Amino acid sequence: MKIHHIGIVVDNIQNSLGEFSKFIKFDEISIPTLVGSQKVNVCFMKIGESRIEFIEPIDDESPVRKALQKGGGFHHICFEVDDLSEKIKEIVENGGRLIVSPVEGFEGRQIAFVLLNMKKTNLNLVELVQR
Amino acid sequence: MKIHHIGIVVDNIQNSLGEFSKFIKFDEISIPTLVGSQKVNVCFMKIGESRIEFIEPIDDESPVRKALQKGGGFHHICFEVDDLSEKIKEIVENGGRLIVSPVEGFEGRQIAFVLLNMKKTNLNLVELVQR
Repeated sequence: MKIHHIGIVVDNIQNSLGEFSKFIKFDEISIPTLVGSQKVNVCFMKIGESRIEFIEPIDDESPVRKALQKGGGFHHICFEVDDLSEKIKEIVENGGRLIVSPVEGFEGRQIAFVLLNMKKTNLNLVELVQR
Repeated sequence: MKIHHIGIVVDNIQNSLGEFSKFIKFDEISIPTLVGSQKVNVCFMKIGESRIEFIEPIDDESPVRKALQKGGGFHHICFEVDDLSEKIKEIVENGGRLIVSPVEGFEGRQIAFVLLNMKKTNLNLVELVQR
């Protein structure tokens, strides 16, 4: 298991790439691509084994539209797991909640979103991606 | 260069560790330690080559006290760099601002905080740590 990426909501991927690349040199920058299931364009900036993901909602029905209206910024941490359905089962058994069932995400990989339902830690929204 | 950690502000490290460990299994969990310069206790949870850091302010003068009062949660990304003073110089030349000059941080390592001053990307506070 590892941290696959940190998701950051932005208004416009190209503008944010232009700003951020002045400060931080990334090992690889992916071509922005559409994730239809979430109605977002995403772009990954690889640095070491992890990535920063820019997430740009493409319309008002995107689930991250509200996050952008609040100013955008940090949105979620994504963990890469060996067995997606096993990990979801374990999280739900421990009181977490599945909010986006496994669906095709970036790179055609299966992703899911869970809410950890932690009361004392403001870090509840987590994405899981199949290794 | 790599992502060393993602800093998360919490009220109480032990409570948050108890909650989070139910959901995510970490490779290593450090013993919570005081970082006197920032008036915080910190705890690192290693997963792959990166870590999640819990940051608990120890008194009202801690620079993260206000972040906790707003509910805590995501606070900063920390990048590990080969040459801390060179990287700070480069960031400042590109319009960033040094807000905590190099000082002893976790593990006795030199750390600094910079504001990237990005107008279109809500991801401005960044920690740098010497490799």
